[in-house]
Amino acid sequence: MIKVAVVLSGCGVKDGSEIHEATLTLLHLAQAGAEYKCFAPNRPLPETINHISGQSGGYERNMLLESARIARGEIEPLENLDVAGFDAVIFPGGLGAAKNLSTWFSKGPEGEVLPEVEAVIRSFRKAGKPQGFICIAPNLAALVLGKEGVRLTIGRDPGTAQAIERTGAKHVEREVGEIEIDRNLKVVSTPAYMLGPTIADVNEGIGKLVLAVLEMT
Amino acid sequence: MIKVAVVLSGCGVKDGSEIHEATLTLLHLAQAGAEYKCFAPNRPLPETINHISGQSGGYERNMLLESARIARGEIEPLENLDVAGFDAVIFPGGLGAAKNLSTWFSKGPEGEVLPEVEAVIRSFRKAGKPQGFICIAPNLAALVLGKEGVRLTIGRDPGTAQAIERTGAKHVEREVGEIEIDRNLKVVSTPAYMLGPTIADVNEGIGKLVLAVLEMT
Repeated sequence: MIKVAVVLSGCGVKDGSEIHEATLTLLHLAQAGAEYKCFAPNRPLPETINHISGQSGGYERNMLLESARIARGEIEPLENLDVAGFDAVIFPGGLGAAKNLSTWFSKGPEGEVLPEVEAVIRSFRKAGKPQGFICIAPNLAALVLGKEGVRLTIGRDPGTAQAIERTGAKHVEREVGEIEIDRNLKVVSTPAYMLGPTIADVNEGIGKLVLAVLEMT
Repeated sequence: MIKVAVVLSGCGVKDGSEIHEATLTLLHLAQAGAEYKCFAPNRPLPETINHISGQSGGYERNMLLESARIARGEIEPLENLDVAGFDAVIFPGGLGAAKNLSTWFSKGPEGEVLPEVEAVIRSFRKAGKPQGFICIAPNLAALVLGKEGVRLTIGRDPGTAQAIERTGAKHVEREVGEIEIDRNLKVVSTPAYMLGPTIADVNEGIGKLVLAVLEMT
């Protein structure tokens, strides 16, 4: 059975993993007969956001504990993720992928990636195993694999696309129901809620991403 | 366009709405071309649970604000839900449906239902509009409509089924991919994670529940 690691960054579009994207990733993995295991950094969220007002909440949460809500408690600290035990890895989106897993949100192409996240991406790349990046999560692929010219999509936002290209990555415009596949680096991406607008639209692209990732294992 | 209200109770299986069940409900509504709007009580969670240890967290959260994470901020207080504006209502599961929306978890058939939740169920019943209850959420239908002999399923846990029947409700055993339809009271239920075990299994039953609810509008 194919085993896929899913890397979460919290629970909620504004300060963690986008819940629909993460859930639909798990759905398509299960429907395809793949086994999955969730991981998240065991670190405090840099900021907790009130999802109605959009304001910073002023109270502290932990990425691993919040991600555990999506994973129904079945989750491990990201530092435990050993590439040898998995055939592929997928990073759902949500602002956590740009604020928690990296500093893309504030620093763009000059941003840093959490060391344990960078280690995962480099180890899967080195092992020739496929990696999927959803929504704004392709910022992680650009920051780590930009110098190798990784080809990816975040949809069609010109500002984000330009910032992605400043890392050395190649950006390709795609619609929400589409994916971009870099067969050389085995990187698959889809715009998801970077475009939306509906959960049914997002589901279409994520379904294709999961199948493309599994096909390359 | 058919409009469906979705009533959430927080964000996470152990102290709120089960995230997969809530997300998959929204997915199937969108795929069927229905419009949805999320609601949740604007009240503190009685208890916040650490989703890894299962222990009570000792810090307070709010049902509406946590539910907003699943709803991507598009949510209103449950007291704003007017039956006149909707064709149907669906209650996803998660322990929030038995600890937050009612006191079923501690009191079983002697439990109380939050007044704004009871008002919703009674108003949809009175209007002859269909209602869907997922996982452990059928406890709400039993507590409010048990005296009318509502027929429903929570899967095949004998203890829970017996407790359900003590309200006057009729319990029917169903598998995870199945639904029970009470055409008289227009109540649809499915076991979801009361049985599981996988998200793909749960998705099957929820898909059928959504279609049955829409078909009765």
